[in-house]
Amino acid sequence: MSKQDSELMEKIISLCKRRGFIYPSSEIYGGFAAVYDYGPYGVELEKAVKDFWWKRVVQENQNVVGLDAAIFMHPKTWEASGHVSGFADPLMECKSCHVRIRVDHALEEIGIFADEKMDLAEINKLVEENKGKIVCPNCKKIEFTEVKKFNQLVKSNLGNFTEDINENPVYLRGETCQGIYVNYKNVLDSARVRVPFGIAQIGKAFRNEITARQFIFRTREFEQMELQYFVPPNAEMDLYEELRKNRWQYYLDLGLSESKLKWHKHENLVFYAKEAYDIEYEFPFGFKELEGVHARGDYDLTQHGKFSGVDFTYTDQKNDESYIPHVIEASVGVGRTVLAVLTEAYTEEEVNGETRIVMKFTKNMAPVKVAVFPLLKNKPELVEKAKSVFESLKSKYMCEFDDNGNVGKRYRRQDEIGTPYCITVDFDTLEDDAVTVRDRDTMEQVRVKLDELQNWLSEKFSE
Amino acid sequence: MSKQDSELMEKIISLCKRRGFIYPSSEIYGGFAAVYDYGPYGVELEKAVKDFWWKRVVQENQNVVGLDAAIFMHPKTWEASGHVSGFADPLMECKSCHVRIRVDHALEEIGIFADEKMDLAEINKLVEENKGKIVCPNCKKIEFTEVKKFNQLVKSNLGNFTEDINENPVYLRGETCQGIYVNYKNVLDSARVRVPFGIAQIGKAFRNEITARQFIFRTREFEQMELQYFVPPNAEMDLYEELRKNRWQYYLDLGLSESKLKWHKHENLVFYAKEAYDIEYEFPFGFKELEGVHARGDYDLTQHGKFSGVDFTYTDQKNDESYIPHVIEASVGVGRTVLAVLTEAYTEEEVNGETRIVMKFTKNMAPVKVAVFPLLKNKPELVEKAKSVFESLKSKYMCEFDDNGNVGKRYRRQDEIGTPYCITVDFDTLEDDAVTVRDRDTMEQVRVKLDELQNWLSEKFSE
Repeated sequence: MSKQDSELMEKIISLCKRRGFIYPSSEIYGGFAAVYDYGPYGVELEKAVKDFWWKRVVQENQNVVGLDAAIFMHPKTWEASGHVSGFADPLMECKSCHVRIRVDHALEEIGIFADEKMDLAEINKLVEENKGKIVCPNCKKIEFTEVKKFNQLVKSNLGNFTEDINENPVYLRGETCQGIYVNYKNVLDSARVRVPFGIAQIGKAFRNEITARQFIFRTREFEQMELQYFVPPNAEMDLYEELRKNRWQYYLDLGLSESKLKWHKHENLVFYAKEAYDIEYEFPFGFKELEGVHARGDYDLTQHGKFSGVDFTYTDQKNDESYIPHVIEASVGVGRTVLAVLTEAYTEEEVNGETRIVMKFTKNMAPVKVAVFPLLKNKPELVEKAKSVFESLKSKYMCEFDDNGNVGKRYRRQDEIGTPYCITVDFDTLEDDAVTVRDRDTMEQVRVKLDELQNWLSEKFSE
Repeated sequence: MSKQDSELMEKIISLCKRRGFIYPSSEIYGGFAAVYDYGPYGVELEKAVKDFWWKRVVQENQNVVGLDAAIFMHPKTWEASGHVSGFADPLMECKSCHVRIRVDHALEEIGIFADEKMDLAEINKLVEENKGKIVCPNCKKIEFTEVKKFNQLVKSNLGNFTEDINENPVYLRGETCQGIYVNYKNVLDSARVRVPFGIAQIGKAFRNEITARQFIFRTREFEQMELQYFVPPNAEMDLYEELRKNRWQYYLDLGLSESKLKWHKHENLVFYAKEAYDIEYEFPFGFKELEGVHARGDYDLTQHGKFSGVDFTYTDQKNDESYIPHVIEASVGVGRTVLAVLTEAYTEEEVNGETRIVMKFTKNMAPVKVAVFPLLKNKPELVEKAKSVFESLKSKYMCEFDDNGNVGKRYRRQDEIGTPYCITVDFDTLEDDAVTVRDRDTMEQVRVKLDELQNWLSEKFSE
């Protein structure tokens, strides 16, 4: 990361804390690593991101339906998916300061790319050969313990009433898509869908990431938005190309700049995958994966068929054929999307020799749509009038009432949370029944009659 | 439960499975106890419930802001809250079939009410005195192991990279409100709020309930909607009365019958509580808690102040006084609300000598708002026209397209998922550009011109 980019990241993190978007978790207790809490504006932004995804992916698609499977599933799910045996990171510990590091990442940093299929002996050999080159990021020493594999699935004792929770652990889901696969047949039987169709889900997942970092980009508790699309084998690649096109357009519609987006093609595919691309976004720390769009073949339903004994064969009566549906998926994190939207919106402008920080969210994403101010807080007639304006708008828009400090300071605060319109009730309002509406981006102020305000805003928000 | 009520419960559970509202979890693996998955219509209903709550509790209240704290928090949170030491159920095991039972519930069933403050020795004595009267619900034997306390907090190894997950467990939150308390100061510092103000949150919580039961009423993984309102000590009881009024009205607006709602006053208050009422709803298994509306005094912030060393004193400049804010709360489960809405909606009617099952959801709660049918699926001109109607409505309403089977059958299916309006494109449509719109409740059909359909629906949905 260049100095400038690292500064930008710091500025975004600081604004998020200061302005109630995102707080470090459990801060009063010294923090809890790799987990974040969304504050009043963060939760609205998160909600806008999820609602936009749901509308585009579920509501507007005739053959996509939603699902909300629980975080906890039968442990066999994770055997079938391969997570119990394979979802492990190579890990070693600094002998001096006991910091744990991801061996594959440490090797990458010295230019060596360990193959995912390497076993522990091979990785240990690679580390031994490069002794002295791998340096502890914390204390700069070079002595490490032997490499071990650490499974990323998070264990728990839900439903386990013995004293020992190591015994028969149940897992917090490591990805939401497994909840979709295990419910595939239920959905097929109860909703009006036929292959090809999609099941979409938004929900939390958990991974014991050894090195969680980059703010909300990689956290141990995170939320995914996943579309799993069940398709006939012979249509997989055509529908995959269509899905890729749709997903690219989705991000443009979300308001991300096309110049900050790019496709990354996976070179080393897992054995069952047909093709895998990621959509990358240019975060302050460089282009990184935002969404994975993958053609997964019949692996998922075949595995669950094998482990559950359920027959997942689909009979296509129209074309008189039978097959195990293949899966194409589009999978993205809520946190990553929020971070992309925050990065895109963050703007510094010179205004009258001062720096104005403004979050230029699209109207759709803006956490607060309209702020209402009485010019002065110690004038009851202004406060009362401003409250009545707030009351008239609140059921349609997320509004904020603010009577604190001078109006200039209130504008700056609303700019930093990205509110598109600020409405001020002043002394003239009491005479002419009109208010001053200030535009966040142009900073222009117009006078709007109160009885025209609803229509004026409606038009602006439907632009 | 009377036979009739138990039948009603069975009917609701069966409809939920058959029609894609709620599935047993991990069914293909034989199920996972005390957890449920929401299908295509369940997830929409759940979303309608949450959106309604958020709009009424957050958006329409000038001094309530939202929050989305993580499921995982610093373990000290649960020491401060009292959960680590006190959140435990008395438990014993049948010596014959090893079924575990809640001792307090077993005692209640024979008319003995164990005080919450009783220690283990006292409870064991009580059980000993009633030997022979307590019968295993499974095998009907009367020999049990000694009573133990089992903590309901669910443990996990998130962020723990040792092999043993009993070592320094971190907890999945047992209630969402703790995330609000630990962020109280962050919100106060970053959002434009002053006491009295509320923080509202929707999110999952987890409890190792020994006897989870009654479908989605009591589950080990569940979702809460909680409002924590921070108030001046001397205004606590007035604001509490106001909150109680608001919450009662909320349920009427949600569409629950007033005759099926009642207040239940807690007689045995925990030591710090000022007053506690529950709103009960008449579920098929009787009146049970839907929501708790409690006046909690200064317990929560005082405890977190003690354990974190943070000073939670609030300085009210207007009235020139300082205090630890008191908390009044309104706490309800998403699953319980969904079950109440399902119970309220479930209707059987005699129509032409047959029983019609119809879910009479309010328009706001209905998972699908409009269904669009071509009269026949093998007539391309009808299918194409119907698809264009679907396309014209989909961005405004959750719609469903159905061309399967005869129209009567499609109506019955839409009745069972509670769709307010079904639109049929028939041969006349190709001539007169009008469609048949059928009303779910009255079953009346009217002919609406396609160019008037948007307005017609808008009016119906804003009624």
